[in-house]
Formats: sequence, structure tokens, C-alpha cells
Amino acid sequence: MDKQKINAMIAAKTWSAQPWKQGLEKMPSFGTVDVWPKAQDLETIDALFVWKPLDRGVIERMPQLKWISSLGAGVDHLMNDPQIPRHIPITRIVDPWLARDMSNYVIMGILMHQRSMDEHKINQQKMDWNRLPYHPLKIGVLGLGALGGHLAQQLVDLGFEVLGYSRTRKHIEGVKSFDENEMDAFLSEPDVLVNLLPITSQTTDVLDLNFFAKVRTGTYLINVARGNHVVEEDLVNALDQGQLCGALLDVFREEPLPKEHPFWNHPKIKITPHVASVTSPESAINLLENNAKRLIKGQSLLHQVDIELGY
Amino acid sequence: MDKQKINAMIAAKTWSAQPWKQGLEKMPSFGTVDVWPKAQDLETIDALFVWKPLDRGVIERMPQLKWISSLGAGVDHLMNDPQIPRHIPITRIVDPWLARDMSNYVIMGILMHQRSMDEHKINQQKMDWNRLPYHPLKIGVLGLGALGGHLAQQLVDLGFEVLGYSRTRKHIEGVKSFDENEMDAFLSEPDVLVNLLPITSQTTDVLDLNFFAKVRTGTYLINVARGNHVVEEDLVNALDQGQLCGALLDVFREEPLPKEHPFWNHPKIKITPHVASVTSPESAINLLENNAKRLIKGQSLLHQVDIELGY
Repeated sequence: MDKQKINAMIAAKTWSAQPWKQGLEKMPSFGTVDVWPKAQDLETIDALFVWKPLDRGVIERMPQLKWISSLGAGVDHLMNDPQIPRHIPITRIVDPWLARDMSNYVIMGILMHQRSMDEHKINQQKMDWNRLPYHPLKIGVLGLGALGGHLAQQLVDLGFEVLGYSRTRKHIEGVKSFDENEMDAFLSEPDVLVNLLPITSQTTDVLDLNFFAKVRTGTYLINVARGNHVVEEDLVNALDQGQLCGALLDVFREEPLPKEHPFWNHPKIKITPHVASVTSPESAINLLENNAKRLIKGQSLLHQVDIELGY
Repeated sequence: MDKQKINAMIAAKTWSAQPWKQGLEKMPSFGTVDVWPKAQDLETIDALFVWKPLDRGVIERMPQLKWISSLGAGVDHLMNDPQIPRHIPITRIVDPWLARDMSNYVIMGILMHQRSMDEHKINQQKMDWNRLPYHPLKIGVLGLGALGGHLAQQLVDLGFEVLGYSRTRKHIEGVKSFDENEMDAFLSEPDVLVNLLPITSQTTDVLDLNFFAKVRTGTYLINVARGNHVVEEDLVNALDQGQLCGALLDVFREEPLPKEHPFWNHPKIKITPHVASVTSPESAINLLENNAKRLIKGQSLLHQVDIELGY
């Protein structure tokens, strides 16, 4: 590239862009850093950093645009947006802290389930000294990418028996791995299922009636990937019929979860408001700086998304 | 030893001894395995396995006794019992699963605190989508023995900053260690304090007013060691004055915790009924078999207790 600094535009809908702007401005490879909807000098913008959704007409006014990045791990908001051109490299944040936080949240969910913490809480209110037993659990991790792979490894280290499912078979020490042709065998074993699949046209609605029919009776479900993986009615049915014994849900088809949604007061559903893993500006900014440096030098960008696969 | 099989007596007060008896009888190094109060043939007993308290007059009727083992990690019930002779080796159960279960329970407690799970539960009841933030935490582990050392290592692997305190300085990768002369410096740093000290005359009542005055304002306490470490009134004071922001307690001076005890409905105390780590008969029996073999061969026993130190 024939310049030494990257001019960036941040378009973040759901939270304040100021810490990102301030952080990026301090990095050596960034020149101007603007926040959408600032509408001047769009023709000098090299990089667009997006957290969803992106307003219409932003990109067509940036003739110099060379790089688009999601400001989180997810890129579905970019993949599904027809205004995103296919010839510009798209990257996402692969943050070691993100994987750590996601893992830790899931570990907490598994342990709270294993140790019957909701029942212990009720027992405390009743002043009831009831020593509820706990048992070893088999954990099935759906999706063994950056997040699922990290989680699977951590669960092995904590002494759990771990099974993993991914499109192509992955090799992770101590993890019994299944590929896309072995979903049924995979689903028949775990006591707890954790969804960390990427969201693509193939994986949308994958947690449906047919899927829940294949799990062990009394499986506990943790969904930390995307709400669109789940057919919500089918999930409620699987819970009501006992096919699932409970669910910890951090993501939903519509967020914030609407007030009238039946999930809120379902006795077998525990809800957190999309907080399993929140990208911290500090670590993401280091990654963006790294890629800005690579763009200036003409090197390929890190953590680029495969448009065909959708992740 | 001039015999090929160990005759054992199990004296377990708080739970059924039958699974232990059946398990030990299947092991090659055990002969007869009786359960107290069986009063015949006491003169042939080689080994006594105890879970507290032990009735008076048991030991003096066992002239051949060569080995006493606790059936758990704790040995305070034996150390404090004047009828236990000092010349007979005393061992305890050091069970890798015990360390794993203890670690996992503490990890759960730390994560539930870090992720504000109690507030999220209340928010769910109010259908309130409030994305509570989380922050990195410094964890201080009091006691770096078999359990505390394992926990400290696991916490490092999960991405926590970890400090450790023990009588003599321990070297654990990634853990900032303090010795018995550095308690004040140790206490000034952590956001969460985990008590895994052994219980001895020196450590009884160590968590008192003076101790709580030295921690950071708003420290969260997890006690999984022994109730006798804690001066209960001082703990309630520290919580009420905000010196501690909350406490997860699994052990108590009196167990079961009496109905009228103020801990039950203190808003900042979470109670579980001594379930952080429960020795499983299977793994403990393997360890007892191992030591029985060593006793027959005249080898020193594994996991022997130092009478002088009291642990």
C-alpha cells in the first residue's frame, strides 16, 4: 500500500464507539478514526469496522475501502448484508480472551448444573441441609473452531469426558471427535450439549425437533453461539417433554429478548443477556493494529473470513 | 509383615459403610472387612478406617493395630482424639478426583460471582435484559497443599491472576507465592479469597476480625476447608460492614448447620451443605489397597500425616 496510516470508520450500533475510537487513534498504524454517522471525507476511508447492523448506503460512498472487520467473533451480520462487496477482505476478532471468557462461562454453566446450584439455593431458603450428590458428566461440544476447540481442551483439563462435533474431524487431545456424517452417534452420548457452531445457512435452525429427538433423554443444553441455531418452539417442546432437562441460553433470535417471550419464565430455562463473552476493546484493538500493519505492508490479513463457508 | 492379607475395621459415623466394605472385600490385599460396632475378633484387626467421630474404647481393644486411615482428606478428627496412639501411622485419602472436584466447585463459585449470576437470576424473574459487565479477578488461595495447589494451577490455566499463601513458600508456575511472614501483603491484593488451609491449632479461628480488616474492601470469600477456620460472628460483621461483599460457604463449625443459624438467611451468604468435594468410595478404595500392599511388604505408607504439624 502506498500510505503509512489507515483511515478507519467505526459503525457500531449496540454500544458506544468512543473507547474503540480512542484506542485506535493511539495505535501507530491508524490515521483518522471516525465514528459513523459522520458523513465527511468518506472517500479517504480505508477500513470499516462494524458491529451490527450497518446502515444502508455506507459502503458505496467509500471508494477506497480495502478492509472490513467485524468488531466481534461473529460475522453473520456481514455475510447476510447484500451491500457488503465480495471482493474486499473481511476479518473478525479472534481474541484469546474471548475464547477464555466463553469457555469460562460454559464451564460455570456445566458446573452449576452438575452441582444442582439452583436446588441448593432453594434448599438454603428452606434452611434444608440436603447433601445433593453429583456425578461425572459427558460433555458434547458442537463446533470445534477457535471457541469450541478451546472449550473442549479446558473441559478435558478439568476432568470431564469430552466429545466434539465439527464439519471435518478435529484432533484435540482427550476429545472424542465426530464429523458431519456422525451427528447421530455424537448426539446419543453427552449429558450436556454445548452449541458453539458457526452460524451459516446450513446451521440455521439446526437445533430443531429432529435434533432434540436424537439426544439422550434428560440432556442439558447450553447455547452460547447464535439464537438462529435454535427453533424456539421445538426447544420449549423438548423441555416440556423431558427430552431436555434444562437449558442455559445466552443468545436469542431476537435480542434483547422481547418482554412477552415464553423463555423468560420457563422453569427449565436459565437466561443471561448475551454476556457469555464480550470482546474487550483493548485486546481487539491490538488485533486491528496488527492487521492494519499487514494491510500497509501488503500482507494477507489475519482471521479472514471464508465467504463461501460463511465463517 | 508376616501375613498376606489385611483385616480391616470401618468406623464411619455420618454415612453408610456398606459400599466401602463391599469394595474393600474385593481387593486382593484385604482379608476380613468389618464394620464398627461389630465387637468380635477385634484382636485380629490390622487396619482401622475412620470417618468421624470414633467411639471411645475401640482402639484399646485392637492389640494388633498397625495402621489408621481417615476415609477423607481431613484428619483433624484423628489429631484431636486422645485415644489415637501416636506410634501407629495415620494416613489420609489424597484422591486426584477429590482435588478435581474441590477445584471445580471453587471455580464455579468464582465464576458465579464474577458473572453476577444471582443478579442475572433476579433480572430474569423481572424480564429485565440488563447486560451486567464482568471484570478480570485476582484470586488468592490460602493453603497450597494437594487441594490448594491443584486449584491454583487450574485457575492460572483458566486465565485468572493467582496469588497463593502457604506456611513455607511454594513454587507453582504462574502463581505469586507468599509465606507465613507475608500474610498482610498477600491479603491486600485478591478480589476473591479461597480458604483451603489445613486445620491445626495454629489455623483454628484464623479468619477473624483482624484477618478481615486486612483484606481489600469488597473481597469475596469462599470457604471450602473447615468451619473452625472462621470466627462466625466476625464473618457476619465483615459482611455487614462491606469489608467482604459476599461469601460462599460449604463448611461450618457445626454440621448440619443448625436451623436457627443466622447464616441461612443472610443476604450475602450462599450456602452449600459440605458438598464441594465428596470422596468417592471407588477412588479411595484403590488408594487403601495400594497402602495395604505396602503395609504387607513392610514399605512406608503413602499420604502419611505428620503428627507434629497436624496435617
